[in-house]
Amino acid sequence: MTSFGLRTLPYGSFSTAQDPRPRVGVAVANQVLDVSAASAQLLPAYAEVFASGTLDALLAGGPDVWATVRSAVESWVHDARARAVLHAHFHAADAVRMLAPFTVADYVDFYASEPHATAVGRIFRPDGDALTPNWKHLPIGYHGRAGTVVPSGTPIVRPRGQRRTPEGEVVFGPSTRLDIEAEVGFVVGTPSTLGEPVGLDDFDQHVFGIVLVNDWSARDLQAWEYVPLGPFLGKSFATSISPWVVPLAALEHARVAPPVRDVPLLPYLEDGGMPPWGLDLQLQVRLNGEVISEPPYAGMYWTPAQMLAHLSVNGASIRSGDLYASGTVSGPRQKQAGSMLELSNGGREPFPLQDGTTRSFLQDGDEVVISATAPGAEGTRISLGEVRGVVHPSRPST
Amino acid sequence: MTSFGLRTLPYGSFSTAQDPRPRVGVAVANQVLDVSAASAQLLPAYAEVFASGTLDALLAGGPDVWATVRSAVESWVHDARARAVLHAHFHAADAVRMLAPFTVADYVDFYASEPHATAVGRIFRPDGDALTPNWKHLPIGYHGRAGTVVPSGTPIVRPRGQRRTPEGEVVFGPSTRLDIEAEVGFVVGTPSTLGEPVGLDDFDQHVFGIVLVNDWSARDLQAWEYVPLGPFLGKSFATSISPWVVPLAALEHARVAPPVRDVPLLPYLEDGGMPPWGLDLQLQVRLNGEVISEPPYAGMYWTPAQMLAHLSVNGASIRSGDLYASGTVSGPRQKQAGSMLELSNGGREPFPLQDGTTRSFLQDGDEVVISATAPGAEGTRISLGEVRGVVHPSRPST
Repeated sequence: MTSFGLRTLPYGSFSTAQDPRPRVGVAVANQVLDVSAASAQLLPAYAEVFASGTLDALLAGGPDVWATVRSAVESWVHDARARAVLHAHFHAADAVRMLAPFTVADYVDFYASEPHATAVGRIFRPDGDALTPNWKHLPIGYHGRAGTVVPSGTPIVRPRGQRRTPEGEVVFGPSTRLDIEAEVGFVVGTPSTLGEPVGLDDFDQHVFGIVLVNDWSARDLQAWEYVPLGPFLGKSFATSISPWVVPLAALEHARVAPPVRDVPLLPYLEDGGMPPWGLDLQLQVRLNGEVISEPPYAGMYWTPAQMLAHLSVNGASIRSGDLYASGTVSGPRQKQAGSMLELSNGGREPFPLQDGTTRSFLQDGDEVVISATAPGAEGTRISLGEVRGVVHPSRPST
Repeated sequence: MTSFGLRTLPYGSFSTAQDPRPRVGVAVANQVLDVSAASAQLLPAYAEVFASGTLDALLAGGPDVWATVRSAVESWVHDARARAVLHAHFHAADAVRMLAPFTVADYVDFYASEPHATAVGRIFRPDGDALTPNWKHLPIGYHGRAGTVVPSGTPIVRPRGQRRTPEGEVVFGPSTRLDIEAEVGFVVGTPSTLGEPVGLDDFDQHVFGIVLVNDWSARDLQAWEYVPLGPFLGKSFATSISPWVVPLAALEHARVAPPVRDVPLLPYLEDGGMPPWGLDLQLQVRLNGEVISEPPYAGMYWTPAQMLAHLSVNGASIRSGDLYASGTVSGPRQKQAGSMLELSNGGREPFPLQDGTTRSFLQDGDEVVISATAPGAEGTRISLGEVRGVVHPSRPST
């Protein structure tokens, strides 16, 4: 497991071989503190928040609960006496099993990287403009399948489906263009009321924290199905998330101004005069252990606050457990793309690996790990954890 | 409330003025039988299924539970002694308040009417083919927002958002092209396993029943946002469903062969040799009490069994409470369209109402009621209930 140090204090759900019940944990260096047990002992008024063993009740608790609990955990971690009292509730990180951290309500995926949208537009629509006319007016997004958001480590079975061959024949079979999308996901805590938009100012009152996301994509299924109603089976077979949710409170040193926007924004998206919600996160994508890309998050055109303001501006309500992701994080340079579609230029230019093979898309057995770091206090960097998955062969029809 | 007669026996969740707790009810002619209470008395082994007051546990119970419970309710309804014993658990239908019947897990919307897809294609893409090349190869669908699926009667606040004017200017404000979509929704009971498709044969082992759906749509928001990733804010502000879920078991006389398909189907969608899952449902759309359309369901190109087989063929799992809808039901003739977009030819030909006004799209204060019937035993017709909603003015920004 990733070490998170002593300041990040992300939350997850875990079990152990001795006790299979799910419990809420906080990662502390190379250990996991059982917060379900610790709160029962030292913060009994909040024990109910952790009783279910998932983050669901914590998310629903809202900013005051988040602050109180984080402050308590910080005191336990940094106070030797408290650590001694809680001794029995610390587990070695490599001895726990991480579970799905929370119940995903709705899952929305955005498309907020300009280099990614430009590259994909060129590949999918070679005869049109790379960016659609709406792209700089609103953060484009769509709903994905919440029921197939799975925790890191879940096997990814190669999906089967329809695709159209270059010769125009429609065939069925295992995807031949299985890809990754390296993304950052935002986890909603406080719900809103139907009919009442969430403004840019209220982002951190509603969003609890972030996870890393691998939005596995079958490019051949997607290319055939996505006109006119968008991606469906090309994405719905699995979306992996990291098991540790890093609270926004741990990202105060990562906040940066978003890039200059070259199209004027409507007032509900205009964030010019506000404390910025750009995030200077640095992602890394490893394929079978080899770093194949290092996508920078800081240049994303749309911030998570703008994504939330947009998705609710029509009055759509949000719920505890809603997850919305940034879309593929791709930087402007070589080896900064968050998808193999881009790294291989649409499959036309396979890229070499150190083992002597090349890849355009994923092979059975390939393991993908997406990790990230962010600036911490005093020039340090903090870990944001990782999300991993191995591609398993497609299953024969039954 | 609609009378459902004595054979349909749909399930819903209700409360009363005297007792605000949600309970599961079955509609019996002009009464509602409190099944939560009745089962505790006469079917105690199944009382737990109804304890929560919603259909969630019933849906998860699977086909054997559905059959046992339906058989028990039938015996209670048709046996005078049982009716006498349960006397206190029957409520006048007009004295109960209907609630959301079940917790929606994922919501998927299809696009299964050929006349609808053809008409909308002509309006949204006047320069291209009306039907996209994939349309007859697969049932096109996309994920919608589960968190804004609301029960019949919930006020529909006119959504605000971005649109592009005919002059090409991007503006913000209340939708000027608010529309309906008259649909039929299918409610999943039995879940499936990630990685294992649900075949055509297994449809009725997984799907419990149907609801009527009004998938409210802001056509101006949708037209501006939907390329390339599909509808988002144009649909996500509200989707209304009928409060009564009609079990598939009540629809045995409604099953008909689907239309002849003029493009060969891949094996996982080929239903030629099977008992058919076309459904001879007759919808009716009323605007402020006036019938404006009577869409026939029987001609839908794709059956609900094909929709389920397609949405899971990539290995995507389904959950209890998943809702998938047919897409707008439109027949080939005048006054058979399930959307005002079609009835007004894209807004170019407003249609007259009996009060002397005309409509292209919905005005504030308009009430829309979608109802439906189906063939019952011996030449009778059974009601499938109704879904209703009133348009409220857009709220000013806060």
